[in-house]
Amino acid sequence: MVSAPSVSSSITARLEVKARPTAVSDLTTAIEKAGGIVTALDVTASFHEAMTVDVTCATRDVDHAQDVVAALENLDGVVVKRVSDRTFLLHLGGKLSVESKVPLRTRDDLSMAYTPGVARVCQAIAEHPEDARRLTIKRNTIAVVTDGTAVLGLGDIGPLAALPVMEGKAVLFKRFADIDAFPICLDTTDVDQIVETVCAIAPAFAGINLEDISAPRCFEVERRLRERLDIPVFHDDQHGTAIVVVAALRNALTVVGKQIGDVRVVMSGAGAAGTAVLKLLLAAGVRDVVVADIDGVVHVGRPGLTPSLRWTAEHTNPRGVTGTIHDAVVGADVFVGLSAPDVITAHDVSRMASDAIVFALANPRPEVDPDEAARYAAVVGTGRSDFANQINNVLAFPGVFRGLLDAQSHTITEPMLLAAAEALASVVRPEELNPTYIVPSVFNPEVTTVVAAAVRHAAEAEDAARERRPPTGEIAAVRRR
Amino acid sequence: MVSAPSVSSSITARLEVKARPTAVSDLTTAIEKAGGIVTALDVTASFHEAMTVDVTCATRDVDHAQDVVAALENLDGVVVKRVSDRTFLLHLGGKLSVESKVPLRTRDDLSMAYTPGVARVCQAIAEHPEDARRLTIKRNTIAVVTDGTAVLGLGDIGPLAALPVMEGKAVLFKRFADIDAFPICLDTTDVDQIVETVCAIAPAFAGINLEDISAPRCFEVERRLRERLDIPVFHDDQHGTAIVVVAALRNALTVVGKQIGDVRVVMSGAGAAGTAVLKLLLAAGVRDVVVADIDGVVHVGRPGLTPSLRWTAEHTNPRGVTGTIHDAVVGADVFVGLSAPDVITAHDVSRMASDAIVFALANPRPEVDPDEAARYAAVVGTGRSDFANQINNVLAFPGVFRGLLDAQSHTITEPMLLAAAEALASVVRPEELNPTYIVPSVFNPEVTTVVAAAVRHAAEAEDAARERRPPTGEIAAVRRR
Repeated sequence: MVSAPSVSSSITARLEVKARPTAVSDLTTAIEKAGGIVTALDVTASFHEAMTVDVTCATRDVDHAQDVVAALENLDGVVVKRVSDRTFLLHLGGKLSVESKVPLRTRDDLSMAYTPGVARVCQAIAEHPEDARRLTIKRNTIAVVTDGTAVLGLGDIGPLAALPVMEGKAVLFKRFADIDAFPICLDTTDVDQIVETVCAIAPAFAGINLEDISAPRCFEVERRLRERLDIPVFHDDQHGTAIVVVAALRNALTVVGKQIGDVRVVMSGAGAAGTAVLKLLLAAGVRDVVVADIDGVVHVGRPGLTPSLRWTAEHTNPRGVTGTIHDAVVGADVFVGLSAPDVITAHDVSRMASDAIVFALANPRPEVDPDEAARYAAVVGTGRSDFANQINNVLAFPGVFRGLLDAQSHTITEPMLLAAAEALASVVRPEELNPTYIVPSVFNPEVTTVVAAAVRHAAEAEDAARERRPPTGEIAAVRRR
Repeated sequence: MVSAPSVSSSITARLEVKARPTAVSDLTTAIEKAGGIVTALDVTASFHEAMTVDVTCATRDVDHAQDVVAALENLDGVVVKRVSDRTFLLHLGGKLSVESKVPLRTRDDLSMAYTPGVARVCQAIAEHPEDARRLTIKRNTIAVVTDGTAVLGLGDIGPLAALPVMEGKAVLFKRFADIDAFPICLDTTDVDQIVETVCAIAPAFAGINLEDISAPRCFEVERRLRERLDIPVFHDDQHGTAIVVVAALRNALTVVGKQIGDVRVVMSGAGAAGTAVLKLLLAAGVRDVVVADIDGVVHVGRPGLTPSLRWTAEHTNPRGVTGTIHDAVVGADVFVGLSAPDVITAHDVSRMASDAIVFALANPRPEVDPDEAARYAAVVGTGRSDFANQINNVLAFPGVFRGLLDAQSHTITEPMLLAAAEALASVVRPEELNPTYIVPSVFNPEVTTVVAAAVRHAAEAEDAARERRPPTGEIAAVRRR
């Protein structure tokens, strides 16, 4: 499974080229022979003897880009003057800005946006804290919080190196849900200190999106923040993934004509994402799940279970399966991989039930080659954009937070996650549904609005349910408005 | 000293008015009689019998606005339908947004701004942390940090109610210096926890602006943050004020033809601002300062001096003055008030040296009525925008941080503050200088650029001086670039 050249590894080379009839075609031929794909070519200056050419091409990765440049350098009459990387160019100066929404042209403007006028707004909030959702950025602002310990496939690269991902996440929040998200990159990996820091900076935010914090610390960070904060705390690696997997499974089951309560599901992976997906699958009605990790199938008799694995053992595996993942997949209707490359083989897929569904979500190398899996399974999904059925968190988190902010929700609960999954599944219309189209495109504008409406509705329903209890203390103050 | 109506307390009233020839003039007359100033009047709908009128007027404060509304309600044939407050309207939804600087139109855009392309940028920063200043928002982003304990004249109103001020500060940073500033409102007043929190969130920021943290905690917060962080930490209430006071004093001395090394200065106030102003005055060359606080003149023999006051006693008062502020001002050339309303009287000013300079900076009510003081002093400045010579921090902090960011400075030092003050003073040209024009307008575009250039120059000079020492550890890594 060699990956194709991608724009994400795109370079622009500035070349000095001796003028001759085949000058340009020599360049494109050399690049294509080296496996690159030319996406743009401009002659930026021309003289009698020579010309300057900017050529942009997609490559597979850094090593491949160097091969392509070497191929150009080897051409007679070509001098490589400069090579720039489009992805790095795009990142110069960062990807976010903080902008003013109010004009400051005159002293009068100043006197309203700042002193002395602003004092009255401060006093109003001091008297009615709930007014902060009306009169400050708290209305539409969330924090994207990481400690940089589990960034993409890169692992523990630290908070500063994680910043481009958090900026990217904030860009996605803005683009897909018009949410003001700000990156908070924490220079600590201590659970207590993470919790204290996020609680300390919480007042200006209406939600916390935890990101790329390694397991098992992420579970405790999330649990303790939820206990202490009166704003929703969402861990995208867990809950975002869970929403999209459940939505994709819903539609895949419709494609193969099976019921969620009847199918046998096998999961590979019991980490942060795996555990969250498991819980949402159970909430969605799955009754027969078997989970395997690096030590094999999780069952109540397995020695040395951690508290989290004990919970899993007690809530899964009704048929008491033991052994390895290869044993567990036999006869299964659904495989969900959130683990590591090449955990199962095409042969394993061939031993699943008929019309099997395979979600191999390890990134960038899935649990099984998706092309191989497709020889035996009816529906195959991955985390990659270069195969059909990309299970991509971008389908979930913007709409989820849009709905939470619109509802001014103080929490996020399982019914809201489930509502988001159902809503996301519903964006693919029955007439569109087929084995290679079980989730919508991230650029489908309906995705955010439909998910947001469902989450808002679920949040307001829970709010209304809470209303029936006599309000006390802080909740009474918040409800008064 | 009754304050004049201000746009910062401006209301818009929607009225239903019976149609008659004097309908509109009755409204404006009633408002003016009540002391309001009409700034806009629109007839938004008209019928045979009646019309709808939106009238906007400036008032002195909330009580006065209610008087104006009552005056309108008392008019025959006028019904007040709704009253809205322009300052509150301007604050709806907050004053800041977080915007994306990169396009996200296609999957290719996504693959560069987010996964998989962003991973290469993360790796580059993991290998060369100093590249974060090139490839992330760290280049141009600072945090505006408060715990909400000393907000404007309002005191300890808490972090949430302080948010409109911090947003306003960020708006000013953007407007005057194109800096991306983000408000961090801390839900703790504990010094240890403030320091730990700011250190924990520091990676994404290139500077920290402390704001409205009460003394004496603000001193220790600043000192400990400067020790631990490799980015500049600026406390605007202290250092911003100090810069503007020293700049104003420079120009005021030129107006009266006195030398800074020769004058006798009396200061009222030994809090956060007072202490910072004192230190910068000494650095600027003042040799004879006497400081008084609520317990009278600070001198080495005074019992019960705190460590901060002991420092002050040991570095001021060369003539061993004792007694009260009223004793100290006799014969003084300069009075600087950073304390409380009505600390001195016009009679005190009359006993100062000839051509006296009075900066009465308590806000909104100065240490002495500026009109009264001007009967005896040659130059009078206040913190208010409705008198000449407003000593306004907006003249300093945008340019200071612009210079620090441009120099990629890791610290802020006294020579940089002094350079900022000298630069700010120089913006007023000799031919412009007069007793009512010793500081430039905040809207003068030269202010930021001149201050920024001076701070950058000073920061780079210190950097170069440090370079001469053999670099070690972290500094070596930072310098490599």
